[in-house]
Order: sequence, then structure tokens, then C-alpha cells
Amino acid sequence: MSLVNIKDSEIDIVIGAVNADLTSFINEWKPVFSSFHLIIVKDPDLKEELQIPGGFNHQVYTKSDIDRVVGPKNSVLFSGYSCRYFGYLVSRRKYIISVDDDCVPAKDSKEFLIDAVAQHISNLTAPATPFFFNTLYDPFRKGADFVRGYPFSLRSGVDCALSCGLWLNLADLDAPTQALRPNQRNSRYVDAVMTVPARAMMPISGINIAFNRELVGPALCPALQLAGEGKLRWETMEDVWSGMCVKVMCDHLGLGVKTGLPYIWRKDRGNAIDSLKKEWEGVKLMEEVVPFFQSVRLPQTATTPEDCMVEMAKAVKEQLGAVDPVFTRAAEAMMEWLKLWKAVGSGSSAAV
Amino acid sequence: MSLVNIKDSEIDIVIGAVNADLTSFINEWKPVFSSFHLIIVKDPDLKEELQIPGGFNHQVYTKSDIDRVVGPKNSVLFSGYSCRYFGYLVSRRKYIISVDDDCVPAKDSKEFLIDAVAQHISNLTAPATPFFFNTLYDPFRKGADFVRGYPFSLRSGVDCALSCGLWLNLADLDAPTQALRPNQRNSRYVDAVMTVPARAMMPISGINIAFNRELVGPALCPALQLAGEGKLRWETMEDVWSGMCVKVMCDHLGLGVKTGLPYIWRKDRGNAIDSLKKEWEGVKLMEEVVPFFQSVRLPQTATTPEDCMVEMAKAVKEQLGAVDPVFTRAAEAMMEWLKLWKAVGSGSSAAV
Repeated sequence: MSLVNIKDSEIDIVIGAVNADLTSFINEWKPVFSSFHLIIVKDPDLKEELQIPGGFNHQVYTKSDIDRVVGPKNSVLFSGYSCRYFGYLVSRRKYIISVDDDCVPAKDSKEFLIDAVAQHISNLTAPATPFFFNTLYDPFRKGADFVRGYPFSLRSGVDCALSCGLWLNLADLDAPTQALRPNQRNSRYVDAVMTVPARAMMPISGINIAFNRELVGPALCPALQLAGEGKLRWETMEDVWSGMCVKVMCDHLGLGVKTGLPYIWRKDRGNAIDSLKKEWEGVKLMEEVVPFFQSVRLPQTATTPEDCMVEMAKAVKEQLGAVDPVFTRAAEAMMEWLKLWKAVGSGSSAAV
Repeated sequence: MSLVNIKDSEIDIVIGAVNADLTSFINEWKPVFSSFHLIIVKDPDLKEELQIPGGFNHQVYTKSDIDRVVGPKNSVLFSGYSCRYFGYLVSRRKYIISVDDDCVPAKDSKEFLIDAVAQHISNLTAPATPFFFNTLYDPFRKGADFVRGYPFSLRSGVDCALSCGLWLNLADLDAPTQALRPNQRNSRYVDAVMTVPARAMMPISGINIAFNRELVGPALCPALQLAGEGKLRWETMEDVWSGMCVKVMCDHLGLGVKTGLPYIWRKDRGNAIDSLKKEWEGVKLMEEVVPFFQSVRLPQTATTPEDCMVEMAKAVKEQLGAVDPVFTRAAEAMMEWLKLWKAVGSGSSAAV
């Protein structure tokens, strides 16, 4: 795999620092990250000083930067895991890659270190095929192709906007599921990338993702904040919500979402049973969230990512607002985000 | 993997004999097939005597059986690769497993022989999840689960009606694709089973499949016969067509289709370049076939597999009939098949 035609300077790696000591995280990623620019955003709730080893081309943003750029009123949007979205906002680059700070590079089935950046960029730069399912997975991969019966008119594919990687060791389960199976770990390395078909909804995880900022940037936004949101992944829903926004947008604009490789290794962290009480809120909300995103259709007049977000925020307010106030707040956060994106995020000058 | 709660007597293995000498085929499958009942249907165009090694519980059907059961007028339906459908018709068992006669058992990534029957039955007996995509593949597999964000209300899944296995060595490409890459072979063992999302269409291959005859039996029918259909897979389209019938039926009736494991090993056979002239017909037809099946919707009144087939045949005639006479013939063959299915196929007595 090679990053043909993509300059390193077109890529930002965005790390949301929920933990203060990034020493081992950064050092373990050294072989993969060293030639790229890192945007590190410190969770504004985090009191301790960040510890970051030297030798990297990186920029750190803290609460005072967030307050300065978006105003103190909006800085609440970027609390906890949502701090990474500030990095998406201030980046000026085409491709964003983002991994949680409790993840390290994984090894493939032959024990080789996986270059997650190269795989994500490969996913984003090869076409996606959302309009017909290819049973042999990614047809653009070396040694693969379209199978018999695949219409030639659909073989050129469409632009890929989002690449979702997976997780070895601690899988991205919710707290109840993990609590039921405290010792379950994911050890299956599935050597495949696929395009998620159009109109199929999926729970996109923010743990290990990459996206084309020009195509879907405005959709990656911190909108759904749980009342009891915590500092463990299974206590959050912001990424699942924004992932559904991305998927609806991609289906509407004719773009693709891929899932599969690359894997990262998630370190064990947290106690699922402690999180159970909080998590039930998110689990219950999904029963409303999924049917909404499965049925929402954007008007033909929505032709840009920004248009799509306006229409989605309207639909959230109208269709989900009465169900739970958390959805009204999500709709408002989407509109706020869009204002910020236009004011701060869509410029083409150097990072703020 | 174990076939819990499924008796061997609920399974028929159907082999369409396009080649006369089945000696090595049967012997290689011995470890997998030996405890099951085999239905072997001889291609009515095949002149030579079948060679089948002893020691198996099998039943052979030839042209004279086909003529006797369906009448000489209808026996043309069962020519070439389509002979296997006669086996689907005369079987009285719940599960059908069918592999092409140029396939042998494959080995997994640890070099263990793959038990394709056990894997297909496992796919068919575990629930399918067509209404929301699970990024960690089959959630019912040992060590796997539903990921964070997957609605609990969808976790019980639905019945799985069809299981599509894949192919190592010679992949199921069409003739132009194989001709362009004569030396390309598939060597990637992807250790995953997944449900194809509802409303996503896919090119189902008949090379290595299993299905629940009670749920979708009538949809597995020989309908689309190319004018230049030959005795090589890439010269046929009958399986791709019937696969789309199955998928539309499953989407309408709330059933699932899975793809992935088991792999089988396809032996090299035929010259793609020789087949190119014939295959273009099928390739061109797919440009009409795919949009049709993607958009066709069955009426709420269609509540059985038989109802669904009647409605699909009607729609084919109305919407595709004017495009090419091959589609009118396909619609008529679907109606013929349905008559045969009711007269011959849906009885519950012993095989004919």
C-alpha cells in the first residue's frame, strides 16, 4: 500500500487527549505518525498538564484556545471525547485521521505492525461502491475485483468520504454488553474493507476513523451529549450520532462510507459495570435515533454538506424534539456547529 | 461449530452434474458429505454416463426423470447449470446445500479443511440482521457481539433464508474480467460472515450456496437463460437472476441473506477469452436487471414466497419485457416454475 499522489501535508492526525499522559501513546505510534502533523486537543475538563514526548510536528490546543476561537459559550461543545471535534474545526487539511488516546498500533495476522494511516488513506482515495454489494469485498484492492454480475456502469464507484477502522482486544461494545461478558476480547482479524451499502445504517465509532474534510467535514460534529456522559467510550454517543449524520449525507450526496481495515489495538480501560447506569441513557436513545436516521430524507435542494446539515438539524428538531430534550439540544448544537464551521472551519488559510 | 438441533435428515446436498466424471469431486468431499443425502442431477445435455464412486447415500436424476416429472416441454428449463434446480424441486427437506461440481473443500488460514456444510447450516440457523449493519460482522459468532450503538430492539434478528459462500483460487468473475487478468486467483481468506443489509442488492453466485427451502424455495428457479449460455459459470446468469429474486423476497418478507464463509476451492477450468463473445450478452443484460431489482417493490398482499414470485414475474414482464425478449421468457419461466413448484415441489412426502 502506498500513499500515491497524496502529500503528507494533506493529512492532519487529530488526537483528543482525554488522558493527560500521552507519552506511551505517542511513542507507540511513532513509526506510523512521525512524518505527519498532529493536532492534539486537550479535553477542557482535564486539569493535569499534558505530557507529550518531543520529536513530533504537533500543535496543542487547550481550553483557552477553544474559548478564544469559539467563545466561552460554545466551548461546552468540546468537553470530554468531543474535544477532538475542535481539531476537525481548526484543521485546514483535506484528510483527517483520528484515533482515541487509549489505542496503539495493532499487528496483522502475520504479526506485522499495521500502518493505520496508510490504510485509511488508501480507503479514502480508492472509490467506494455503495450502490451494489461486491461479495469479494473491496474490488479495488490488489488481487480483488468485481464479481460476476456486477454492473459495469457501477464499477467506477464514487468518492469515499469516511473510513471506519476496527478494534482488536477491547471491542467497541456498549457497557451492558461488556458488563455481561467482562472477559470477552476481540481477537479476530478480518482482512477486509467494504463499502457499507447506500441506505444501510451503521453505528460508526469514533475510536479509529478517517474522513475527507472537504466532502463531509460539517457532519463530524459534537451534537448528542448525554446527560451522564463520562470519560469512557461506552459512556458516549456523540460519535454514533455524528456517524449517522455522515451516512445520511453520503447517501444523499452520492458518496461512500467504508468499514473494516485498519485495526487498532484498544487497551483495557474502565469498568463496564460502573458505567452501566450512565450507559442505559444512550442505549434507550438509540431506539429513537436509528428509526429517525433510517427514514429521514433530505430535499433535492440540499447540494452541499452545509445544506445537508441544516436540513438534518431541522428534521431532528421536528421529529425527535418532542421525544426527549436531548434531541432539541442536539439540533441546536448542530446549528451552532454549522455557524462555527462557516466562521472558523471552512477557511483555507493556515490552522487557527 | 456444531449442527445443534438440526438432524442430518433435514439436509439435502444437491449437485448439478455438468461434468460426467464425479469420482474426484465426490471423493474429495467425502469427509464433509458422507453423512448426508445427496441429490445428483445430470445435465440433460450430457451424453456420457455419470461416474459416481460408491459408499454414499445418493439419488441420481437424469433426463428421463426430468421428462417424467415436469413433462418434456418443461425439461428445457433444466439444461446446463440449471439442472440443479430440478434437485431443489424434488427435495423434500428443509435445508438445501449446493456446490458446483468443479469445486472441492478449501482450507482455512490455519490449513484446516473447511466443513462447508456445518458453516452453511450455522449461517442458516443463526439469526440474520438485515436492518442495521454490525461493524464487527456476524454478532452471533463465538467471541463476537453487537457493537455500541446497535439498537437492542433489533438484536434478536430475523430468520436467515440464504447463505452464500465464497471461492478461493478461481474467483467468480465474469469472462471479460477474468480474460483481462488471466492469472489472477483469489487467495484472501476473509474470516467473516455478514448479513447483507435490507434493500442492498448483490450478485448472488450459485457456486456455493445453501438455503432454507421452506422460506424461499420458490425463488431459486431457472428463469434467465442466455441465448448463448454455455457450460462454464461465466457463461451463465441464472444464479445471479434467481439470487436477486431471493433478495427482493427476503427484503419483502423480513428475512435475511448472509455472505462470507464458507469458502470452497474452485478448480481452474475453461478459457475466459473463448467465452468472451457469449458473456457480453449477460454483462449487457445486468445494466437492465440491476436497476429493475433495486426498484421493484412487492405489494403488501404478497405474504408467501409463492405470492412474491407471482408479483415479481408480473413486474418483470411489465417493466423489462419490452427491453429484450429474454426477459419475457424469464417471466414466463418464473410462472412455469411456480406451477411446477406447487405441483411437484411443495409436497411433504418423500422425494419423487
